[in-house]
Amino acid sequence: MRPEKTSPLVGILMGSKSDLPILQLTIDKLFELGIPCEVKVMSAHRTPEAASEYIKQAESRGLKVIIAAAGGAAHLAGFLAGQTILPVIGIPIDATSLGGLDALLSTVQMPPGVPVATVAIGKFGAVNAAVLAAQIIALGDVKLNNRLKQMKKEMAQKVIDACDELNREIGI
Amino acid sequence: MRPEKTSPLVGILMGSKSDLPILQLTIDKLFELGIPCEVKVMSAHRTPEAASEYIKQAESRGLKVIIAAAGGAAHLAGFLAGQTILPVIGIPIDATSLGGLDALLSTVQMPPGVPVATVAIGKFGAVNAAVLAAQIIALGDVKLNNRLKQMKKEMAQKVIDACDELNREIGI
Amino acid sequence: MRPEKTSPLVGILMGSKSDLPILQLTIDKLFELGIPCEVKVMSAHRTPEAASEYIKQAESRGLKVIIAAAGGAAHLAGFLAGQTILPVIGIPIDATSLGGLDALLSTVQMPPGVPVATVAIGKFGAVNAAVLAAQIIALGDVKLNNRLKQMKKEMAQKVIDACDELNREIGI
Amino acid sequence: MRPEKTSPLVGILMGSKSDLPILQLTIDKLFELGIPCEVKVMSAHRTPEAASEYIKQAESRGLKVIIAAAGGAAHLAGFLAGQTILPVIGIPIDATSLGGLDALLSTVQMPPGVPVATVAIGKFGAVNAAVLAAQIIALGDVKLNNRLKQMKKEMAQKVIDACDELNREIGI
Amino acid sequence: MRPEKTSPLVGILMGSKSDLPILQLTIDKLFELGIPCEVKVMSAHRTPEAASEYIKQAESRGLKVIIAAAGGAAHLAGFLAGQTILPVIGIPIDATSLGGLDALLSTVQMPPGVPVATVAIGKFGAVNAAVLAAQIIALGDVKLNNRLKQMKKEMAQKVIDACDELNREIGI
Amino acid sequence: MRPEKTSPLVGILMGSKSDLPILQLTIDKLFELGIPCEVKVMSAHRTPEAASEYIKQAESRGLKVIIAAAGGAAHLAGFLAGQTILPVIGIPIDATSLGGLDALLSTVQMPPGVPVATVAIGKFGAVNAAVLAAQIIALGDVKLNNRLKQMKKEMAQKVIDACDELNREIGI
Amino acid sequence: MRPEKTSPLVGILMGSKSDLPILQLTIDKLFELGIPCEVKVMSAHRTPEAASEYIKQAESRGLKVIIAAAGGAAHLAGFLAGQTILPVIGIPIDATSLGGLDALLSTVQMPPGVPVATVAIGKFGAVNAAVLAAQIIALGDVKLNNRLKQMKKEMAQKVIDACDELNREIGI
Amino acid sequence: MRPEKTSPLVGILMGSKSDLPILQLTIDKLFELGIPCEVKVMSAHRTPEAASEYIKQAESRGLKVIIAAAGGAAHLAGFLAGQTILPVIGIPIDATSLGGLDALLSTVQMPPGVPVATVAIGKFGAVNAAVLAAQIIALGDVKLNNRLKQMKKEMAQKVIDACDELNREIGI
Repeated sequence: MRPEKTSPLVGILMGSKSDLPILQLTIDKLFELGIPCEVKVMSAHRTPEAASEYIKQAESRGLKVIIAAAGGAAHLAGFLAGQTILPVIGIPIDATSLGGLDALLSTVQMPPGVPVATVAIGKFGAVNAAVLAAQIIALGDVKLNNRLKQMKKEMAQKVIDACDELNREIGI
Repeated sequence: MRPEKTSPLVGILMGSKSDLPILQLTIDKLFELGIPCEVKVMSAHRTPEAASEYIKQAESRGLKVIIAAAGGAAHLAGFLAGQTILPVIGIPIDATSLGGLDALLSTVQMPPGVPVATVAIGKFGAVNAAVLAAQIIALGDVKLNNRLKQMKKEMAQKVIDACDELNREIGI
Repeated sequence: MRPEKTSPLVGILMGSKSDLPILQLTIDKLFELGIPCEVKVMSAHRTPEAASEYIKQAESRGLKVIIAAAGGAAHLAGFLAGQTILPVIGIPIDATSLGGLDALLSTVQMPPGVPVATVAIGKFGAVNAAVLAAQIIALGDVKLNNRLKQMKKEMAQKVIDACDELNREIGI
Repeated sequence: MRPEKTSPLVGILMGSKSDLPILQLTIDKLFELGIPCEVKVMSAHRTPEAASEYIKQAESRGLKVIIAAAGGAAHLAGFLAGQTILPVIGIPIDATSLGGLDALLSTVQMPPGVPVATVAIGKFGAVNAAVLAAQIIALGDVKLNNRLKQMKKEMAQKVIDACDELNREIGI
Repeated sequence: MRPEKTSPLVGILMGSKSDLPILQLTIDKLFELGIPCEVKVMSAHRTPEAASEYIKQAESRGLKVIIAAAGGAAHLAGFLAGQTILPVIGIPIDATSLGGLDALLSTVQMPPGVPVATVAIGKFGAVNAAVLAAQIIALGDVKLNNRLKQMKKEMAQKVIDACDELNREIGI
Repeated sequence: MRPEKTSPLVGILMGSKSDLPILQLTIDKLFELGIPCEVKVMSAHRTPEAASEYIKQAESRGLKVIIAAAGGAAHLAGFLAGQTILPVIGIPIDATSLGGLDALLSTVQMPPGVPVATVAIGKFGAVNAAVLAAQIIALGDVKLNNRLKQMKKEMAQKVIDACDELNREIGI
Repeated sequence: MRPEKTSPLVGILMGSKSDLPILQLTIDKLFELGIPCEVKVMSAHRTPEAASEYIKQAESRGLKVIIAAAGGAAHLAGFLAGQTILPVIGIPIDATSLGGLDALLSTVQMPPGVPVATVAIGKFGAVNAAVLAAQIIALGDVKLNNRLKQMKKEMAQKVIDACDELNREIGI
Repeated sequence: MRPEKTSPLVGILMGSKSDLPILQLTIDKLFELGIPCEVKVMSAHRTPEAASEYIKQAESRGLKVIIAAAGGAAHLAGFLAGQTILPVIGIPIDATSLGGLDALLSTVQMPPGVPVATVAIGKFGAVNAAVLAAQIIALGDVKLNNRLKQMKKEMAQKVIDACDELNREIGI
């Protein structure tokens, strides 16, 4: 019985279930960092009421950060940001023929007063949304702070290892 | 006492009052075509509840077409389109350093099932939103249909007059 | 003998038969909404006379809305819009190496007085052209109005179902 | 009595009289090269019939090259190219907030079989449309051929003079 | 003696002092929300050591959020994000002839593991960086949480007031 | 013995032999129209002297039109245009990760006095370069003029046939 | 009598004398670093022979680096790079309505074997072309190497001074 | 025992080992030109300290030129350029959904005083980075100078051979 631990701190919302393969990277990274999350399919355009209801209760339900992913005219993150003071992270998805430029601009160019913390288009952004959420939560969580520092060291080590491996391979 | 005439058929919404100079073109063209309209400042991000309430009552209040203008991450038209089956026309406003490309993509690239009838960025689109609204309403209004045909003739005549004028001016 | 039902209300025009796979989505959605349509291959550049003749008779033949799809320098929708006061919906097709940006700009950036109601590039737009046409026709058709409201509910339900399914699948 | 000389060889069409300041460069360059031209305001969208009538008679009236300038969804050159086998030169005009990218793509990305000889956006293109028309006409006109060669020499000389002038000015 | 109040929680860094007019909006908004900040001119390219030293001490000095603004090849936010686990917010500045697109892409397209929370280009982003920083800090500060909710209400009220004012002005 | 017929009227130059599959469309269309051509691999950057020598002799060798295709920083057409008064047609090739936008801008944005008649990127442009060359040559060749008119009719007929075929297929 | 010093090491070429205000930054920076240069107006399109002659003699005349600036379809740097093995630095100039994107892509997207060392569009690039030229020449010039290191220190100091000044001004 | 020969003159850095297939072209070309190089995986964001340490020792270790490749928000080349006066060549990698435009702008748009010699996106740039490095080093190396001149001749010959081959193949 560990209600606090399993109570989600991050709410991940996607506009369409077809975005799951990319958001799985977000889920996996949050899991790796030990941050409980919940995942929802909700649409600013098709289920605006459900999305409004969800976001209005998000803070009182204990969520700390919202992550929203959408492609095309990607309104989901901005829609949510308009109805909460929780930090909202937006992941633009490359879902149309424009390479995600439409989703990026729809997500990042928010009017003053309603920020969306936008990360990179697609897979890079999916990982980074999780890391950014962790960095935000870590401001009040020493253990997570340490895990992030450890993760940063491991990332550096992987680059160093790749460098060694490369030099063995090409032999120069 | 002419309630039907003054009861608005078109609702014009702008995300910020600073968009009025451009939307004045829409208002003027609707006025010229004899279509009563109402004008509101409402924001998908700053007054989502007021905007939701407005759009949900739009059809029962007798509105036929909604025109929404916004710049940057222009979500207003799509926000409204998600909550009505009235046709929603979106005017992308050139309000940032990207020349309105952000507003255009945020307005036009809507997901399947929730169309926004997008017109040109800025002034051209402001006029055309009014004309498109008139074309839609004219399907059930013979007088307006005639006015539109008359307007089309006058447009053509203006081009012909400009051509004559040009030839007088340059003298070739 | 149901002449009214089978008399087409929507004319779908494509610049090239190769656009049919995308426009099939438009045809299917109109069929699903019970709106009779006709489909033509016509080109603003290769059969301008046939296209002119078609569009000039469109209104008297009982058509309510025109849908035109084209790629590259996509002139078809604008060409038609210049010769009718029926609402013309333009679907930009991703037919070149520029991801449909050329078709989008060629379709949406129309001069004042001659609007094209532009929808999203490609598949999303193909569905949305049908929905937008239905929304326009529904202003004078109570049954269609109800079908659209029903469709909106079903869209919402699908998102809700997808959300449930997702949560069963990932088990968090 | 010099009918041949004054009979125009080049027809210059602009979608709006407001494009005249840019097209004046075309007119001036043609004049400088001794090529008689005529100038018209005609619109693919507002006066399609007049434009069709004009272009269908262009060849029999003795025109050799058509130059068409338009901004935004710049359809004029393509519209004309669809109805003649005369070479049509398109000048994209920077008339919207997108820097002429819309006009460029609308002009150049023509479907197979209907070319528009596209030149640079705006002033550079306005001059070059005249030079290109001259190069085409010069294939059958020895005097013009010589004038073009002379013009090329003078252009080179101007660069050389500018170089000398520059070195006098900066003194290095 | 109010050490807590004056000890900065947000570090604002700009690549060039010429960015101050835009960042003043960030400073003002943080001041308005009662969040102490410090402001530095530091460059990822011209003072990398000073910037490294600064960011490595940021956490231990009590900073909670870093805001970095830069134009062109805008590396500053990413440079800092690589050397801290504090949340780093990036404001792309429109400082070149590309309208800030260069700065936006340089800021947002970060590789996995090193997020920059990117906000809108220029003034909109400058305000939003402050609001986002406040939203992050408010997760651990009830008073600020209340101030943000109050600010959100005031924003809504301003839109409502603008709407009323508009309707008085245009009188329809 | 038909020297005049086999003496090439069009010179087709490509920057790299890898562009042949696209230029084959140009060759085929010229062949279909009965216009003799020659084909060369020449580079503005790798064989500038050969290219200079070629273009300087082009006119005296009886060539009427030059067609040049290149990708990336596509300088070939402009390079040639600087050294001849023959009309030069440029085909931008989609040879990099930017979808041919680089080649299009490098080809079309020529400075005043040195036009390149630019056609669409890739395959569409390859066909159109041939048609445009034919249109230019047809100004002095009645038979070719007739062939072009015939081609235009056949193009129209193909569209009409496709339309009929479509309607048989989808049966509405 | 210091012939070696005044013999130019860098040749600066511009396509048009109108680019001088921007290239003055290059000249000034080279002067500041003590590197003798010469400045020429030469065009790849209008004076190709003079430009060819110049670049072929560049190495034997003692030049070490070539700097070329051009706007629009900016071919000058690539043209020169094709005819020398000296390093050629290209400065894209913002001379059209596309913000220099055309010049950037025309300059940087060179085919394999013929590099142009491209720097930023406009003023930033004008300064950087000089610095890059200096860095290249400094590989064989110890005094210049020291001057560059000194310049780097001074640049850092200016940022530090600006930071101090800023903090005095805003007083936080 | 040939320490000087095997002591690397060029340092090639990549942000991720996944960029090796493209950088192999750089390695191969340098090898072909007889220029010893070393290859490292280093990241401006994940191993900034290792990268700083590397670049600060680069000059004293005898390196003459640095080549850095990265995709997305490609900061590596600029990061290194800020900490050395050696010439730094940047290769933008097409690693995201934006076709390398993000990497190009992140690499080339450097602020005044800190140039990155940017080459084409991807494979073309990978070859050209090696050639540019060779051109720089050849300023002080007569043998390499000759090899580059030889390479330029061979490139020309290959184009000439391709031209001959083409004409044999297509037989016109």
